[in-house]
Amino acid sequence: MSFDHLQQLIKAKKNPTVAGLDPKPEYVPPHLLKASLDKYGETLEGAADAIYQFNVGLMDALCDIVPAVKPQSAFYERLGWQGMLVLEKTIRYAQDKGFFVIADAKRGDIGSTAQAYSEAWLGKTRVGQTELSAFNADCLTINGYLGSDGIDPFLETCRREDKCFFNLVKTSNPSSGELQDMVAGDRVVYQVMGDLTARLGRDDIGKFGYSRAGAVVGATYPSDLRSLRKRLEHTFFLVPGYGAQGGTAEDVRFAFDKYGRGAIVNASRSIMCAWQKTGHDGQDYQDAARAAAEAMRDDIKQFVTIL
Amino acid sequence: MSFDHLQQLIKAKKNPTVAGLDPKPEYVPPHLLKASLDKYGETLEGAADAIYQFNVGLMDALCDIVPAVKPQSAFYERLGWQGMLVLEKTIRYAQDKGFFVIADAKRGDIGSTAQAYSEAWLGKTRVGQTELSAFNADCLTINGYLGSDGIDPFLETCRREDKCFFNLVKTSNPSSGELQDMVAGDRVVYQVMGDLTARLGRDDIGKFGYSRAGAVVGATYPSDLRSLRKRLEHTFFLVPGYGAQGGTAEDVRFAFDKYGRGAIVNASRSIMCAWQKTGHDGQDYQDAARAAAEAMRDDIKQFVTIL
Repeated sequence: MSFDHLQQLIKAKKNPTVAGLDPKPEYVPPHLLKASLDKYGETLEGAADAIYQFNVGLMDALCDIVPAVKPQSAFYERLGWQGMLVLEKTIRYAQDKGFFVIADAKRGDIGSTAQAYSEAWLGKTRVGQTELSAFNADCLTINGYLGSDGIDPFLETCRREDKCFFNLVKTSNPSSGELQDMVAGDRVVYQVMGDLTARLGRDDIGKFGYSRAGAVVGATYPSDLRSLRKRLEHTFFLVPGYGAQGGTAEDVRFAFDKYGRGAIVNASRSIMCAWQKTGHDGQDYQDAARAAAEAMRDDIKQFVTIL
Repeated sequence: MSFDHLQQLIKAKKNPTVAGLDPKPEYVPPHLLKASLDKYGETLEGAADAIYQFNVGLMDALCDIVPAVKPQSAFYERLGWQGMLVLEKTIRYAQDKGFFVIADAKRGDIGSTAQAYSEAWLGKTRVGQTELSAFNADCLTINGYLGSDGIDPFLETCRREDKCFFNLVKTSNPSSGELQDMVAGDRVVYQVMGDLTARLGRDDIGKFGYSRAGAVVGATYPSDLRSLRKRLEHTFFLVPGYGAQGGTAEDVRFAFDKYGRGAIVNASRSIMCAWQKTGHDGQDYQDAARAAAEAMRDDIKQFVTIL
C-alpha cells in the first residue's frame, strides 16, 4: 500500500488525518480496563486485552471518517510478547476495517538487520519454503541516523511489497533542534536528512507525485515545515505535533501541496482521551473519539482543500 | 545492572567481548532448524523454536568465558510475537547463566513514548497495583537523533533500576558518515551526539569511572574511536565492527582506557557461524563457537590488558 493508496483514502474521506493508537494506560476507559483485569488478573495479558478492546472500539467508531491509524509500538512492547500479539491483532483488525496502517516503531539499523526489521514490519519472513507475515503494516516510521545503508533495505522491501515508509527528518519535540538544527556548511542536519530521503525515493514516484520514501516533519516548527515542503516536492509528510503539542491547523497547512495533497496529520491524545473531557465515566469513549476526529478534520478543512 | 557490574564480569573472565545473538536464518545449524520445523511445521513458531534452541546451545557453550550477550531485536521481530516470546525467554536464560544482557533494539522516541520503551526493555510496567516486567534486559541500545528529551526517559529508568544504555554515536557502517560526520561549527555531528551523551550521564559516575550513559562507537573508524575515547572519558563504549566488518584487535584497543576498561567489543557472525568453517555439518556448533570466542579474546588480549 503505497502513498498513492493513502492519498486515495484521504481524498475519499476528505480527511488528511491519522488517528494514533498509543494506548497509554491512563487513556483506557476504566470500564474496559476493569473488564479485562477481572478476566485475566493484573497481568500483562490483562492489560493487553484491555488495550485491544479499546483499539477495536476506537476503530469501529472512526473507520468511516478517518483514513489511517498509527499504532505506537512502544505501548505494546511494554506489555512484552503479549503486547506484541495484540499489536498484530490490532493491525489485522485495522486493515479489515479499511484503514491504512502506519506502524510507528522508528526502527533503524544497517544491512541485514535493517532488512530483518523491514521483513518484520512491511515484508515477509521465509521459513523453509514458506513465506509468512509478522506485523505486516502498510507503512513504517524509521530512523535514518545510521545513513543510507540503514534506509536502503526498507526501500527495497517497500518496492517489492508496494509499501512505503516515513524517515525522521524534523521531529516535533522541544529538543529536536539539538542535533537536527545543527548548521553544517550551507545546510542544517534535518535538511541533509530530508535531501537524503528525497534522493533515495526519487526513482519511484507515484501518480500523485510522491515517492515511497516519506518524511516525519513536526507541526510545531511551521517555518521549517513550510521550507521543507518546498524543498522536498516528492516527499510525503507525516506531521505529528498537532493539538496537545501545540501545532495548529494554520501551522499544518504548510505541509500540503497546492492540491491539498502530500501530507497526513497525526492526532493521538485528543482522539483517544476525548472521553476524559465529556464529564462522563468513559462509557461514551466512542462517541467522544468520533466527535474529536470530526472536529480535527473540520479544523484542518478551514485551511486545506483536498483535490 | 550498571556498567560497574559489566566491568566486573569482564575482569573476572578477562574478556572484554560480547557475543551477538543475531539469529539470521542462515546462521542456524541445519539439524536444529530441521528438528524444530519437524515439530512445528514451517511456521513462525517453528523458526522461533529453532532460534531459541540455537541460542541456548550457544549460551551453554560460552557462559564461562564470555561476560555478555547482545540479542538483536530485529531477528526476533521478524518472527512476530512468537519471536518476541523467544526473545524474552532468551534474555531470561542468559541472565540465569550469569550473562550481562544488552538488548540491541536501537529504540528512540520522545517523552512518554520513550518512557514506555524504557519500561519495556529496562524497567517495569504497572498494571493496576502490580508491577510486572516485560523484556527486562540489563542494558539497551538507543538512537538519540530526536535529542535529549528522547534520551532522558531512558536515563531516568536506568537510575531507578540501576541499569545503563548505549546511545548511537559513531556507527560502524560504510555510510555512517553521511550524517554523523557532518561538520557543524567546530564539531562534527557524532561529537555533538557524544558530548550530549556524556553531559546527560555526568551526574552519576560508577566506581570504575563510567556513567550509565554509554555510546556505540564502531571499530571500523579507529581514529574516530581514539579521539572519542579521549573526549568522552566517563562514557562506556560498545564497539561493533570487529571481525567481519573489518575492524581488528589493533583498532579496537583505542576504545579502552589505560586500565583496559571502559569498552566491550561485539562479535556476532564470527561466533554464531563458526560452525560453517569447520567443514562439518553444524553438529559441532558449540565447540566451534567456543573456539571462536576464545580466539577473539586472545586476539584482543595482545593489545589490551584488563586491570
